[in-house]
Amino acid sequence: MKTKRLKYAMIGGAKGSFIGPIHRMAIRLDDLADLAAGCFSRDARNNAATGAKLRLDPKRVYPGWRELIAAERGKVDFVVVCTTNETHYEIARAALEAGFDVLCEKPLSLTVPEAEELGRVARRRRRVLGIPFTYTGYPMVKLARDLVRRGELGKVDKVVLEYVQGSFRKVDFSKPLDRHNAWKMNPKISGPSCVVADIGVHAFTMVEYVTGLEAKTLLADLSSFAPGNKLDDDASILMRLGSAKGGARGASAKASLVVSKIATGEENGVRLRVYGDKASLHWDQEAPNYLTLKYPLQPDRVFRRKAPYVADLSPASVKASRFPAGHHEGFVEALATIYDEFVAAVLTRRACDYPGPREGVRSMRFVEAALASNAKGSAWVRV
Amino acid sequence: MKTKRLKYAMIGGAKGSFIGPIHRMAIRLDDLADLAAGCFSRDARNNAATGAKLRLDPKRVYPGWRELIAAERGKVDFVVVCTTNETHYEIARAALEAGFDVLCEKPLSLTVPEAEELGRVARRRRRVLGIPFTYTGYPMVKLARDLVRRGELGKVDKVVLEYVQGSFRKVDFSKPLDRHNAWKMNPKISGPSCVVADIGVHAFTMVEYVTGLEAKTLLADLSSFAPGNKLDDDASILMRLGSAKGGARGASAKASLVVSKIATGEENGVRLRVYGDKASLHWDQEAPNYLTLKYPLQPDRVFRRKAPYVADLSPASVKASRFPAGHHEGFVEALATIYDEFVAAVLTRRACDYPGPREGVRSMRFVEAALASNAKGSAWVRV
Amino acid sequence: MKTKRLKYAMIGGAKGSFIGPIHRMAIRLDDLADLAAGCFSRDARNNAATGAKLRLDPKRVYPGWRELIAAERGKVDFVVVCTTNETHYEIARAALEAGFDVLCEKPLSLTVPEAEELGRVARRRRRVLGIPFTYTGYPMVKLARDLVRRGELGKVDKVVLEYVQGSFRKVDFSKPLDRHNAWKMNPKISGPSCVVADIGVHAFTMVEYVTGLEAKTLLADLSSFAPGNKLDDDASILMRLGSAKGGARGASAKASLVVSKIATGEENGVRLRVYGDKASLHWDQEAPNYLTLKYPLQPDRVFRRKAPYVADLSPASVKASRFPAGHHEGFVEALATIYDEFVAAVLTRRACDYPGPREGVRSMRFVEAALASNAKGSAWVRV
Amino acid sequence: MKTKRLKYAMIGGAKGSFIGPIHRMAIRLDDLADLAAGCFSRDARNNAATGAKLRLDPKRVYPGWRELIAAERGKVDFVVVCTTNETHYEIARAALEAGFDVLCEKPLSLTVPEAEELGRVARRRRRVLGIPFTYTGYPMVKLARDLVRRGELGKVDKVVLEYVQGSFRKVDFSKPLDRHNAWKMNPKISGPSCVVADIGVHAFTMVEYVTGLEAKTLLADLSSFAPGNKLDDDASILMRLGSAKGGARGASAKASLVVSKIATGEENGVRLRVYGDKASLHWDQEAPNYLTLKYPLQPDRVFRRKAPYVADLSPASVKASRFPAGHHEGFVEALATIYDEFVAAVLTRRACDYPGPREGVRSMRFVEAALASNAKGSAWVRV
Repeated sequence: MKTKRLKYAMIGGAKGSFIGPIHRMAIRLDDLADLAAGCFSRDARNNAATGAKLRLDPKRVYPGWRELIAAERGKVDFVVVCTTNETHYEIARAALEAGFDVLCEKPLSLTVPEAEELGRVARRRRRVLGIPFTYTGYPMVKLARDLVRRGELGKVDKVVLEYVQGSFRKVDFSKPLDRHNAWKMNPKISGPSCVVADIGVHAFTMVEYVTGLEAKTLLADLSSFAPGNKLDDDASILMRLGSAKGGARGASAKASLVVSKIATGEENGVRLRVYGDKASLHWDQEAPNYLTLKYPLQPDRVFRRKAPYVADLSPASVKASRFPAGHHEGFVEALATIYDEFVAAVLTRRACDYPGPREGVRSMRFVEAALASNAKGSAWVRV
Repeated sequence: MKTKRLKYAMIGGAKGSFIGPIHRMAIRLDDLADLAAGCFSRDARNNAATGAKLRLDPKRVYPGWRELIAAERGKVDFVVVCTTNETHYEIARAALEAGFDVLCEKPLSLTVPEAEELGRVARRRRRVLGIPFTYTGYPMVKLARDLVRRGELGKVDKVVLEYVQGSFRKVDFSKPLDRHNAWKMNPKISGPSCVVADIGVHAFTMVEYVTGLEAKTLLADLSSFAPGNKLDDDASILMRLGSAKGGARGASAKASLVVSKIATGEENGVRLRVYGDKASLHWDQEAPNYLTLKYPLQPDRVFRRKAPYVADLSPASVKASRFPAGHHEGFVEALATIYDEFVAAVLTRRACDYPGPREGVRSMRFVEAALASNAKGSAWVRV
Repeated sequence: MKTKRLKYAMIGGAKGSFIGPIHRMAIRLDDLADLAAGCFSRDARNNAATGAKLRLDPKRVYPGWRELIAAERGKVDFVVVCTTNETHYEIARAALEAGFDVLCEKPLSLTVPEAEELGRVARRRRRVLGIPFTYTGYPMVKLARDLVRRGELGKVDKVVLEYVQGSFRKVDFSKPLDRHNAWKMNPKISGPSCVVADIGVHAFTMVEYVTGLEAKTLLADLSSFAPGNKLDDDASILMRLGSAKGGARGASAKASLVVSKIATGEENGVRLRVYGDKASLHWDQEAPNYLTLKYPLQPDRVFRRKAPYVADLSPASVKASRFPAGHHEGFVEALATIYDEFVAAVLTRRACDYPGPREGVRSMRFVEAALASNAKGSAWVRV
Repeated sequence: MKTKRLKYAMIGGAKGSFIGPIHRMAIRLDDLADLAAGCFSRDARNNAATGAKLRLDPKRVYPGWRELIAAERGKVDFVVVCTTNETHYEIARAALEAGFDVLCEKPLSLTVPEAEELGRVARRRRRVLGIPFTYTGYPMVKLARDLVRRGELGKVDKVVLEYVQGSFRKVDFSKPLDRHNAWKMNPKISGPSCVVADIGVHAFTMVEYVTGLEAKTLLADLSSFAPGNKLDDDASILMRLGSAKGGARGASAKASLVVSKIATGEENGVRLRVYGDKASLHWDQEAPNYLTLKYPLQPDRVFRRKAPYVADLSPASVKASRFPAGHHEGFVEALATIYDEFVAAVLTRRACDYPGPREGVRSMRFVEAALASNAKGSAWVRV
């Protein structure tokens, strides 16, 4: 399958960026493609320095993303968009229209119509559009989904998911040094939501990915605790889930989400519980190589990633693993798995197991619904 | 202080009861009082058998609680009420009126006015009224409260608390054998709420106990997942907390609670997180001898119950401990600590550190508010 | 069975003692017997004060243990010996000879011949002699033993057990306040060994209890790290195990033990692993309500104490439990379970599941073998 | 520093190999060098297929390692040796002699003299010789070493380290499919030791790396439990440590090691404890992003990899990290860190923080001492 050597361009992700280097590592890990061009920063010096560090031909390090798209048409196979939120829509759209396959960071856009439009463009131009909802790339999250599908949990009744960070406690936003988090509080860059759009969308996507259900309605209570922050930095969200298209008829369940950037001392706590009427599953991103199942009338079972009991694990979980159990994989492998599937789609033009336009649109609906509910005093609203 | 040898009577708690034997063990553990009389069951045979097993004088094993109260006046120092919910008010009231100090199981009553009335009677008759919100008896929960008081967490912003059981997944309610859980689903016995009144009140009381704040408003989404269950067996509840009387002015925080009896495979998962702007605290009832503090800019600290660094622990936490760190205490010790404080109040007639009428009334307000909010489609209501 | 109300006397265990109050609590927990007499301390004032606090008749608080034994003959059912090591033999022997059943703290004696003699006296006088190897009282340790017996682990090949404390790091032995640990370093009181005799015997007894095998030979490397300490405070011991009398023929296994009082920051870390050719088991005294089984070709299974899957648990494990899973039991319950079985033997004169003369003698052989091996430069010696 | 683009060749590591692909991923992760040539397998078909999959020029895929060394002189910067044990010495020696820098899998050789000879050749030819003792590449292991160096633990007294796998329980060695583990049991390929040479050397190297001490003497008890296995598959080893050259004078400590491949159900359990007189440290390779410190008189501290409290972490630990705390790194990152330092040495010809000839020789002395001690009935022998 991987006979052809792919090339890609990156927009955003200069030196000092958090996520850009991780994308490049993830792509290298499984040797999926070579970086061939970039427009890393509006800061010309940083842009050039990043290109040089990455040993790019200086001619292929562009001062603006429009130049990159114009010049790299037909030269690279896909474009990775790692810029700040407010530019995602414009760049992804232009890249898709220009015929590139695109992997674009979340949130896919600032509004639902923008996300829908990107989906339409991708469909019309027959382009692959991927979104790195990285947590769906973890082998044990795939196993969780597959165990639910298999019926191991019975009927899913309740989901409890938290995604808690303390990142807004660590920094002094008045200081220029804290750029890294500061732009997330700036509505012009971050959009109308901070915590819901930044990490809530991960939580939401996990819930739908693992349960196979669809959020129908939600209510939200958003807060802004960090001094000087105008956007939401903490959210409690309740959801009602029902059958997704093509899913089990008549399914229904409830979810309780806590999403926060003011959870002091937490690093990146993504903890998922799904309670079915036959069993429950428990996963923690900070111990990602395990998945625990609890039963009413038998001992807990702890599954280990890529353990020798392959038959108990799901093919997707095993496929998403590189090393045997005990040799732990972490964050970069999860992102690499997203890329594996994205690149498989690029190469085969077939549907693969990566988050795409559907997840992009649904996560934006989630953001808008949360903002709307909060504005109405936590009323239930449709997703 | 403990020069006088106390005696007590128990109402409810026959053989086969879950909580009755635990109360008796807790009282024995610290050698607080001797059981001298009882009315354990409406079933005469079980009543007699329980009394015999406990080596009571058969004359002091009464067929009805009214007889016990009438006959034991002046003979026992306090009465423990372990009956089913619908009788708590009537029995506790009669016992208080008769001049007994009373420890009554939760929920204190079926309604707020009943709980308030019990508070009034206790006050008027100058009787001690205790309620075994057992989780407030754990040394590390006392330490949590004391660290919040000391300001170690800074301003409290967010509380996340779950109390999850899978008890309604384990049983077949159609079978007579499952009496133990079945009465909790019967509105005539359990009252208008099941999960909120049965274990939600524990969660609520912990939140107020640890934070020193008071719930002002809440919204609730209740469910009944267990087949055949008419009452709530799962609840997601959001709360807004503010200054308690006598507490810090202007304080405010938010809480997210998940309370469930359909959390398949969970045993008794009480997990508390409190996030302040300087630190957060983390406690899990299934590893109760530890309390973890997390900070923005220093390593996590894990406190152990009654470790030699006594100065870092609080006096109340050390006082509530029996054995040195490493020799673990559990559930019965926590209840014994509630009794230690209750008995201290019985002996000294002074305020001690046990849940009393205030907690009883507030927890009933919580139950009523949750029911009211749920009935209004999860609207915010006052507590 | 428990129709008769038992009475006991205690020798040692005055106020300020670590273990005395725990014994009294453990006996009360399951309401096994009433303390009726005592000789708690050589210090007359402390002796009297302890008796008064425990509400004993002052006439039954004796100035010396000989007086107690002489005067209480026929008045109490058993005697608990909680004195320092050097007196165990003499007191236990006198009590047995006087016709008392005896529960005597470990180490049972200072030498093997003394332990053997106690066994002989108990046998000759038909007295019950129990030794509180408390860790064998934990429900999950009983389950571990029973799973081994059932063959769940297959052939046992390797045991890894550590019992690590940091108690000798916390104290300044030059100060009089540190009596509690200081006597353990004094050969006149503690005997020829400190760490091996004090906690190594627990570890050793667990190995034989759980595996059903018998240590045949061992080698030991003892150390004295704490400043001013003349006795061993750290030991690494390797053992070879074989069939016990009446056990499976031809069994053999190896064990690696680490026992220490200089394991800085450890509280009471008793961690057992047993590796069979079909499965392994894992238990940690600091999370005692769980037992984990690991298999070559299936997910780990985590057993919870007294969970509803009773059939997967063993009768002895369930019998040794009081509260349902999730309501944790700890150290005092484990000791209470030792007493439950000891008292059952006192009442029925039948063999019950408590450590007795056999375990007392074998653990003393272990101590002597460890000292002998160490003296010979860690040579293998017979146990 | 990384201005020059490096190239490397690999010997061994064909498709189906466990460690070869991990080496290639680790090198790609930090974009250190490009694979340019290889001799992956004696099986011509697999050799060619591996080269093709890796997109190598078929002319640079050699039928034998000698051809590779002869032909690639001056064309690649370093050679990675991932073959089976019995060939390490010969290949590494030839490559060094030919002027290549070499990274060679452990064990470096089958005998001490061979390892010493490799060290001499490397020195003479001024070549970089690295050995992937991967566990020393973990950031928290580097932090452990640095905390010991800083004196945070005080004087180190005791080390407890286990490296336990159940790999020999999972497989049926009679079947051809189990090649992967089977060669490790074959003395002609594996050499005179299996478990000690295969994973014991990792454990040994960690002990010396973290403590800064040197093993002086050891005693070993080796076993062969797996049916049909002639070599050691389980070992208990005691060691006495003293000052390393250039280290603190007069230091001394003891270590207890358990190393096993028959630890049923274990995956890759590397658990290190170091007890000093001021603090102890605790690390578990299966939760590698944390390091716990325990103290006599203060709460435990849990350090997280690359947390924002950089000042509490050591520069080497931070340098060895890629992603912020909460975004976990695992096995491949640890190996990549070994390569980072190895490549830095290749580029700068200066000493860097990777295991080299010294560690290779010392680990072989450890193997020989363990075999010698075991042959003498677990006598103490010099390392």
